[in-house]
This record gives sequence, C-alpha cells and structure tokens, in this order.
Amino acid sequence: MLAIALAEARAGLASGGIPIGAALVGPHGAVWGRGHNRRVQDGDPSAHGETSAFRAAGRRRSYRGTTMVTTLSPCWYCSGLIRQFGITSVLIGEATTFSGGHDWLAEHGVAVTVLDDPECVALMTDFIATRPDLWFEDIGE
Amino acid sequence: MLAIALAEARAGLASGGIPIGAALVGPHGAVWGRGHNRRVQDGDPSAHGETSAFRAAGRRRSYRGTTMVTTLSPCWYCSGLIRQFGITSVLIGEATTFSGGHDWLAEHGVAVTVLDDPECVALMTDFIATRPDLWFEDIGE
Repeated sequence: MLAIALAEARAGLASGGIPIGAALVGPHGAVWGRGHNRRVQDGDPSAHGETSAFRAAGRRRSYRGTTMVTTLSPCWYCSGLIRQFGITSVLIGEATTFSGGHDWLAEHGVAVTVLDDPECVALMTDFIATRPDLWFEDIGE
Repeated sequence: MLAIALAEARAGLASGGIPIGAALVGPHGAVWGRGHNRRVQDGDPSAHGETSAFRAAGRRRSYRGTTMVTTLSPCWYCSGLIRQFGITSVLIGEATTFSGGHDWLAEHGVAVTVLDDPECVALMTDFIATRPDLWFEDIGE
C-alpha cells in the first residue's frame, strides 16, 4: 500500500510541490482516494497529503476498517482528521524527518504502524534541505 | 467577529448545507478568510467551516496573532488544524450541541473563548433535529 502513497509523493515533487503522498484504503483493500500535498500547486494550505486522499474519497458514511497510508507521520491537522472520522489504522512511511501526532492516535485506539522506509526518508530529507522555506510553511513553523 | 461566522453558517444552511461557519481573523483585525461547511454543496467531506476559512485565507507564513472564529466547538480535525498552524486564539459560538477539542487546545496554549450564543445554539439544535443523518456523517459518528 505504501507504493501508492510514495507514487503520489513523487508526483507532487515532479509538479513542483511538497513530496508527501497518501491513500485512504477501504476495509476490503480498495483504494477509496489518493492524493498528495498541493500547497504549491493549488495555493491551498489545507491540501495536505492525507486530507487530499480523504477528500478524493468523497462522502462516506463510515470509516470503520479503513487505513490511511501516508509517506510521513501525520501532522496534528491530519492526525485530528484520522481521529475525528474514526479511521481505524494508519500506515506511515517514516517518522524520522518529522514526527506528528501518531503516538497520540495510538493512545486513542488507532492502529499505528511506522515503517522506516528509506525511500520516504530520502525524499523528505532531500526536500527539507532544498526547500526549507516551503517545508516550514507547510507545518506552520 | 462572531457575526461573520454566523452569517457564513446561515449562508451554508440556505444553500442546503450544514450550518457551521468560520472566519480566520488576522492579528490586526482584518478577515483573512471566511467560509462554511460545504460537505453537501461540494460533496467534499474535508470542507468543514474552519478548514474552509483557513483555505480561503490562502498561503501564509505565520498564524501568530490570528483568531479562528467559529460558530461551533471545533472537532478534532479542525482542532488539529488550529494547533498545527499555531493559530493563537479561538472564539467559539457555542459548545453545547457539540464539544470537540477546545479543552485540548487550551491545554496546549491556545487562547480559547467559548461564548454561549443562543443563535448559534438554536441553529445547530434545529439542524441536528431536522437532519441527524447529515450531522452524524459530518463528524464521522
């Protein structure tokens, strides 16, 4: 599943954006929605990877059994999304370059898996070194 | 400031949507962005009142000194937004019909004011009674 989020992150980078991608996967493995950070492309600060995937999935009555797959530990904004909508699991590519709210999610019953994927780490490490201005804008720091 | 959020909530209701409105106000009192819940109108589950106002404000380098004004206590998703981006203050119309993450925000240094505005309470009380399906969909319950 991480391959989809990583493909989204790479597509975001290729179009001049911040390389964070995500996918919302339904309880039976179907991809409900996928997307990447679009702050730069759309001038939209609310379009994080996870919120873009959630938006792309459209209106849903329940998120029970779903998994949010993301290349990077979800920030508080995206962690709040996951908690509010009762998304069951989160699969995270890496939490080395940035650590958001995933421990808080685990405390509140979300099944959290943090991989330590070298491709995800390399993508963000390079991006933060190259465009720290965009990165810190994206997390409000 | 609440009048702007309330006008947004009423506009949302008038266009068939969920009556929650918000405005992001800059440090010197200018309205940076305003909006309302657009789940129904746009088929967009990510468009809560607060996230719509945040989006309308466009890209910003810092949220220091800003106030998020909202007709209703912000859910975890919107509370996460406020925390992540360092929005300084939150002015809430009411927290009677729904109580989200405002105590958590206060614990983390956000200046939280909860009014007990009868117009805001009446708007949501009527809406929840009329369209419980939409309301519970909107908060993932």
